Amino acid sequence: MIALGIDPGTALCGYGFIESVDGSCVAKSCGVISTPPQLPMPQRLLKIHNQLDDLINAFQPDVMGVEKLFFGKNSTTAISVAQARGIVLLAAARHNLDLIEITPNEVKQSITGYGGADKQQVIFMVTKILNLPEPPYPDDAADALAIALAAAYTANSIAYRRLAL
Amino acid sequence: MIALGIDPGTALCGYGFIESVDGSCVAKSCGVISTPPQLPMPQRLLKIHNQLDDLINAFQPDVMGVEKLFFGKNSTTAISVAQARGIVLLAAARHNLDLIEITPNEVKQSITGYGGADKQQVIFMVTKILNLPEPPYPDDAADALAIALAAAYTANSIAYRRLAL
Repeated sequence: MIALGIDPGTALCGYGFIESVDGSCVAKSCGVISTPPQLPMPQRLLKIHNQLDDLINAFQPDVMGVEKLFFGKNSTTAISVAQARGIVLLAAARHNLDLIEITPNEVKQSITGYGGADKQQVIFMVTKILNLPEPPYPDDAADALAIALAAAYTANSIAYRRLAL
Repeated sequence: MIALGIDPGTALCGYGFIESVDGSCVAKSCGVISTPPQLPMPQRLLKIHNQLDDLINAFQPDVMGVEKLFFGKNSTTAISVAQARGIVLLAAARHNLDLIEITPNEVKQSITGYGGADKQQVIFMVTKILNLPEPPYPDDAADALAIALAAAYTANSIAYRRLAL
């Protein structure tokens, strides 16, 4: 099973693909889709849409993991993240991917065993679990791999529960 | 010049097309794209994306007007509106439409002459300006026509200023 994790944003949209076979996971690819701030917003969203399309066609994931969105103090950033998240959810529908929405705390819990873990702990554990030669860069790509891992765990646990019924 | 106004939302996404010829405007079409709450969010966004695509192909607008988004108290609704707005901006990019972003107050100002006008005043003036037999229904469709009118006024004024240079 191949899981795609996405950390949505318009300046940097992190993505990570992992493959889960018999309970162990390997990284297939990770990175960021970046768009320049001087580009009008519709064109930035189109670039994210097109590059995400190409990535999904190349890696053929089965599930997509995306964090649930909560609003903090910076509502301008939040609007821009939510708009990019709309494009990401559209890609899930167009490619018939099962969508797994997870809270940021659930991602940390499933990667580090502790829902209040900080970013460095998460990156450290992602690097360890996936046996990577060095931490993924930038942080948005590492976050996306963490979300992909959490989505794969959730998807496997759903499949396991279905088998047990 | 044909202007499309959009009032984004996932349950109801209002749209209105108007044609502006020699300073006078006529309504071409208005309505709402509705999606049921029991449908998963990716499928709801896909439905909005596909129907908007069909409408743009049918009416071939030159410009798209969308309100600037501000966050109120209900952040769950705000996330959902911003996600739908991402799909709407994507459609603008895919169809090469000039995007005109306007504040809600600018829309009210340009339709009623008063930025603090209430919804009923706006609907009354939209009905009058476009010489409609009755007020557009539902309110989201009327709002979309108001945004289309404000976008057409802005686009015409930009074109006029360009001619004057």
